Amino acid sequence: MKIDVLTLFPEMFDGVFGASILGKAKEKGIVSLEAINFRAYSGNKHNTVDDYPYGGGGGMVLKPEPVFAAVEDLKIDENVRPRVILMCPQGSQFTQQKAEELAKEQHLVLICGHYEGYDERIREHLVTDELSIGDYVLTGGEVPAMVVIDSVVRLLQGVLGNETSAVTDSYSTGLLEHPHYTRPAEFRGWGVPDVLISGHHANIEVWRREQSLLRTLQRRPDLLKQAELTDKERKWLAAKKRQETHNQGE
Amino acid sequence: MKIDVLTLFPEMFDGVFGASILGKAKEKGIVSLEAINFRAYSGNKHNTVDDYPYGGGGGMVLKPEPVFAAVEDLKIDENVRPRVILMCPQGSQFTQQKAEELAKEQHLVLICGHYEGYDERIREHLVTDELSIGDYVLTGGEVPAMVVIDSVVRLLQGVLGNETSAVTDSYSTGLLEHPHYTRPAEFRGWGVPDVLISGHHANIEVWRREQSLLRTLQRRPDLLKQAELTDKERKWLAAKKRQETHNQGE
Repeated sequence: MKIDVLTLFPEMFDGVFGASILGKAKEKGIVSLEAINFRAYSGNKHNTVDDYPYGGGGGMVLKPEPVFAAVEDLKIDENVRPRVILMCPQGSQFTQQKAEELAKEQHLVLICGHYEGYDERIREHLVTDELSIGDYVLTGGEVPAMVVIDSVVRLLQGVLGNETSAVTDSYSTGLLEHPHYTRPAEFRGWGVPDVLISGHHANIEVWRREQSLLRTLQRRPDLLKQAELTDKERKWLAAKKRQETHNQGE
Repeated sequence: MKIDVLTLFPEMFDGVFGASILGKAKEKGIVSLEAINFRAYSGNKHNTVDDYPYGGGGGMVLKPEPVFAAVEDLKIDENVRPRVILMCPQGSQFTQQKAEELAKEQHLVLICGHYEGYDERIREHLVTDELSIGDYVLTGGEVPAMVVIDSVVRLLQGVLGNETSAVTDSYSTGLLEHPHYTRPAEFRGWGVPDVLISGHHANIEVWRREQSLLRTLQRRPDLLKQAELTDKERKWLAAKKRQETHNQGE
């Protein structure tokens, strides 16, 4: 897969593209990751990429020419239509489902604005997706682009080794993870639940599943609707929920 | 403000901490930003920071000692209690409100795990907040930590210049932004709405407000409940909504 990021701050990506799992995926040749300064495509001698908004008002607006020229220059060939993704607060919410969809593509181009707005013609005639990673205000699209790239690349075949696949499996149950403990068995007077050092594997499984259900109930009850649960588990959760409501009412 | 990130991949932060608005905030002395490898606090000669989980199963678990030792070593003084934030999928959803809350603190410590789990005693006895930036799977807490840091630092006094405050203002209306256009007036046959080049400022304001309302209705109707709207605007939106439902029904 080829992933290109258009940004005025390509140096922001140096650390993330070079390290850890993205760095390894790049080394293995599974993905090509490039951060490209679209100022190089300004097409004017002052290298201007933004201009005042029509109709007045504060702020600057990114001009259409450099962004169109950069995307067209980056095309692999005539047969591969890139997904051109605008990172912006107005975009639709990025989700795991979207990550899985994007992981099937051959070529992604992510466009990052900074505090400027985008000329609307970029949205209307160039972009295939507008994405937002959440309802918080950031200084630019660069960090959100890293979020999208990280979540997509980890899904590509050959990227994750055995050490990480377990985490993926646990996520796929649709529940939050149960608590983990490792050595020392006692740290500053705080111990480890007895069941975990009992060696009784069936009991450990039951405890972990219950903890996972309980944590999801307490923190993310919305996830329970989608989770795969047995009838017995649904009844157990309903009882726990009544109990908590009762305790709060006291 | 002092912000410390505990990570096994401090080099991932080089680009983001050095560039653009975070870089400037650091240069101006408004914020200190450090990425610290907590492997330095392992306290054992093999520099081990993780170990097998009690109770068995796949994956590794981050040990409590290095994380506790690092947080304690980073304390400014006895009077400043740091906010110790664990980046994890089980955390509560990061929001703009949380960013504003964190921006009032003197010292933030963000803990980033990678694919390992955290020993539960870190959660129970060290951490003050557990945060997730959204419902998608990432390879570690590093990029989410960048999201939190970016959103918090931009709120600190003196960080944003005039060029960006306008964007903040527009966000504070609770609506998505209206479309922007800049030169050229015609690009590849696509023009600019007549009203924006009319010079009639009152009409421009009306158009922009309508576009902003319309875009919010189409993309993020959930935001309209919280937005400050006049009665006339609410009626106008209700009519638009009926019209859209009608068109879809045809």
